Amino acid sequence: MTKTLLAALFITLLSGAAGAHDEPAPAVSGSAMTATLVRIRDAAVVSDYAYRQTAMLSDEVGPRLTGSKGAAEAVKRVAAELRALGLEVKLEPVKVPHWVRGEETAALVDWNNRAEGLSHKLAITALGGSVATPKKGIRAEVVPVRDFAELTALGRENISGKIVLFTAAFDEQMAAAGRAGDAYGGAVAYRGLGASKAAALGAVAAINRSAGPIGNHQPHTGALRYADGVAKVPAAAIAAEDSLLIERLAAKGKVTMQLLLTPQTLPDTDSFNVVADLKGRELPDEIVLVSGHLDSWDLGTGAQDDATGVAAAMHVAATLKTLGLTPRRTIRVVAWMNEENGLKGGTSYAELHTGDIAKHIAALEMDYGSGHPTGFAANVTPATLPLLKPIGEVLSGIGAGIVDFRLTGVGADIGPLNKLGVPGFAPLTDGRDYFTIHHTAADTLDKVNPRFLAENAAVLSVLAYALAEGEPLPRLPVTP
Amino acid sequence: MTKTLLAALFITLLSGAAGAHDEPAPAVSGSAMTATLVRIRDAAVVSDYAYRQTAMLSDEVGPRLTGSKGAAEAVKRVAAELRALGLEVKLEPVKVPHWVRGEETAALVDWNNRAEGLSHKLAITALGGSVATPKKGIRAEVVPVRDFAELTALGRENISGKIVLFTAAFDEQMAAAGRAGDAYGGAVAYRGLGASKAAALGAVAAINRSAGPIGNHQPHTGALRYADGVAKVPAAAIAAEDSLLIERLAAKGKVTMQLLLTPQTLPDTDSFNVVADLKGRELPDEIVLVSGHLDSWDLGTGAQDDATGVAAAMHVAATLKTLGLTPRRTIRVVAWMNEENGLKGGTSYAELHTGDIAKHIAALEMDYGSGHPTGFAANVTPATLPLLKPIGEVLSGIGAGIVDFRLTGVGADIGPLNKLGVPGFAPLTDGRDYFTIHHTAADTLDKVNPRFLAENAAVLSVLAYALAEGEPLPRLPVTP
Repeated sequence: MTKTLLAALFITLLSGAAGAHDEPAPAVSGSAMTATLVRIRDAAVVSDYAYRQTAMLSDEVGPRLTGSKGAAEAVKRVAAELRALGLEVKLEPVKVPHWVRGEETAALVDWNNRAEGLSHKLAITALGGSVATPKKGIRAEVVPVRDFAELTALGRENISGKIVLFTAAFDEQMAAAGRAGDAYGGAVAYRGLGASKAAALGAVAAINRSAGPIGNHQPHTGALRYADGVAKVPAAAIAAEDSLLIERLAAKGKVTMQLLLTPQTLPDTDSFNVVADLKGRELPDEIVLVSGHLDSWDLGTGAQDDATGVAAAMHVAATLKTLGLTPRRTIRVVAWMNEENGLKGGTSYAELHTGDIAKHIAALEMDYGSGHPTGFAANVTPATLPLLKPIGEVLSGIGAGIVDFRLTGVGADIGPLNKLGVPGFAPLTDGRDYFTIHHTAADTLDKVNPRFLAENAAVLSVLAYALAEGEPLPRLPVTP
Repeated sequence: MTKTLLAALFITLLSGAAGAHDEPAPAVSGSAMTATLVRIRDAAVVSDYAYRQTAMLSDEVGPRLTGSKGAAEAVKRVAAELRALGLEVKLEPVKVPHWVRGEETAALVDWNNRAEGLSHKLAITALGGSVATPKKGIRAEVVPVRDFAELTALGRENISGKIVLFTAAFDEQMAAAGRAGDAYGGAVAYRGLGASKAAALGAVAAINRSAGPIGNHQPHTGALRYADGVAKVPAAAIAAEDSLLIERLAAKGKVTMQLLLTPQTLPDTDSFNVVADLKGRELPDEIVLVSGHLDSWDLGTGAQDDATGVAAAMHVAATLKTLGLTPRRTIRVVAWMNEENGLKGGTSYAELHTGDIAKHIAALEMDYGSGHPTGFAANVTPATLPLLKPIGEVLSGIGAGIVDFRLTGVGADIGPLNKLGVPGFAPLTDGRDYFTIHHTAADTLDKVNPRFLAENAAVLSVLAYALAEGEPLPRLPVTP
């Protein structure tokens, strides 16, 4: 079947125009389909199901770092809830890293014109995967650098034996202007790559200004990636306020830091993706996957990152069950393990399902908090976009009508599926406030607005059902 | 001299009308005086002097809790700066309390439907003056109460042996509407009085929801006051987020907390108010006092509470020196010690100066952060208000023209002077953001807007100079 024909069919399905093709007739007529999507939207948006599941994960389970008791308990609870909805639930094994945070303290112990006995305590947190400092800690000069170019320009003679501080700021104006993801992208490279870049020039540790707005004096954790062939040095994030303090003091003279981090990397351990099917009535082997990630960082309770995503995916099944709707294809709810520090859930799933990847019609993930959704983002071929317009029209009834074309992935866990050709989708969520609490102790249930969460769940519900009913979308090109 | 005559003189002084009285002629004519105040205003508002002093106290000295090395260093630095301005500087001894923070950890270790091994770490900080828990900590049920009435209603049978959590919230809408001080007042009573009220019913510890807006997951410290004749129990504040978590969990069943606090109260120690005179040219014994407090809490660097206040008071002298103006009366810059946990600086000063209290014409204090000032607050007799209008008119040129009448004190340290009859003044500062960081680790230099700080310093400069030139204002009634 050509893509053009496919497009015509999909539009027919949703637009209400009568179709006359030699392909199998759509399960429902266009106008009936629109009415059904409106019913799903309106049922989803008034339900508190996702909020209750978020509260369960955030309050009753708490932090869910991969390998922790909280993560294991979350698997059990979510599986039980999905079974209670009547879904077919499997736990798919995933071998995961097991990193545990230890003590973490840092202080400035000397600076220009310091009086005897004074120090500045810093708000610091180890990056996920960091090695520990020696037990007595590290005492060294801190050298602030604006970016990798400045690091390179300073060179080994100025970096060797020092602690490098990457001072790149999260651009708050950019975030306020609606481009929070781009603002995050501009800062997070230093968290991910800074340790090895600094170590390559002889640094003894790397610190980064937290990848989030200034104001709450919280350090934002997150994963780092050590490069092969370079010494692994301890790495941590400090509050934006403390980064500015060091910049100011360093402008006047040498600044010395005392740093202690005692995290441990334990042997890889066993965990699971929770995979739960609402079986399709006509094409049960074909799958529309809707998901969030179950693991979280350990500082807060991962309410927005990503209990809301898991809960909203569960909400899709709950809504269809409430309405007594069985989709044409299977809608598969997945709660991923280990998005934060390894992505083992997403990569394992893609490996395990290589054989039936062609049966995966679409993959949805929600992992950007639960602010008001303004629509959805689609990682699809350009030709697919017009096919999605009718879905956007249904969602415009809750202010979520934008269909945003993306050439890049829209969710980390579904990235491996996208690379195998599966179109990807995510709610287009207002993320202006998301990075204030992202990966901090402040990511707690009170940050979740129940109405906005239900709106995101409605986006997923309408989108998943429409994709499960209509003809398959064009596949993405397979990339290595 | 009657108050009416005084008023007439003061108005004459500032209004530009020619006065003809048998009192000594004003030092400068009205229009010349207005021009001078405008010069002071405009010089003060473009100077970065106060910002540099704030940076010195916040960055180079750091936290300045009473009794600490930081507090002692701050005394030295501020005295040296004021001497460098050419002022006559005295260190007036003050015997101060010496409380030091220790370890402070708390976790929820049991709740309804908790899985084995799970816990919730809480963001907690001991209140200033709190006693310690036993070394192994306290493990007890937490009972949330909305207010003192609910505590009383629960009674000893429900409180004895428990940890009481006061859940009263800082009213963020009230604060956003410009009444942040009132919002603070509504929450802070539980911090101040909660421990003894709870202990009177047999509680083993008292926790309060932090007196500030929710959002940054920071605990806000502050002083408590133990009542006489009641057992002293450990007391601490938790982040607003954690208070809500406990409320939610407690609604479903018993919640158990493990609490460890190891603060110590050491013997009282010696410290100082820094008292620096810019001597008056005609009436050097008469004093207009302008002040802020030098001590801070220990979690942040006390940038807004109250390095900015001290720095703005210093800015008054710096501005007059720059302009070569010597006021008619002495302008006395005071940096108070121990505002936060004892008020010994303010009370000692009033005791030490009982003999010359009548020579104190007015007392100014800035201790509400350094947001944009909209005018000034005056703790004066109602009849005084019209006399202040011309000063407000000069300040309206920088958007600070409101003259706000207060029946209550306008600064803690100058409260004892107000009670002895000395009129009190403070900048009327935009405090909408102040309580977000107040008494937390986030009270750091980056929160200070240099322009707004200079505006506050301009308010103090204009006000202090006008009061030092004009006739004395009516005294406040002396109160016990």
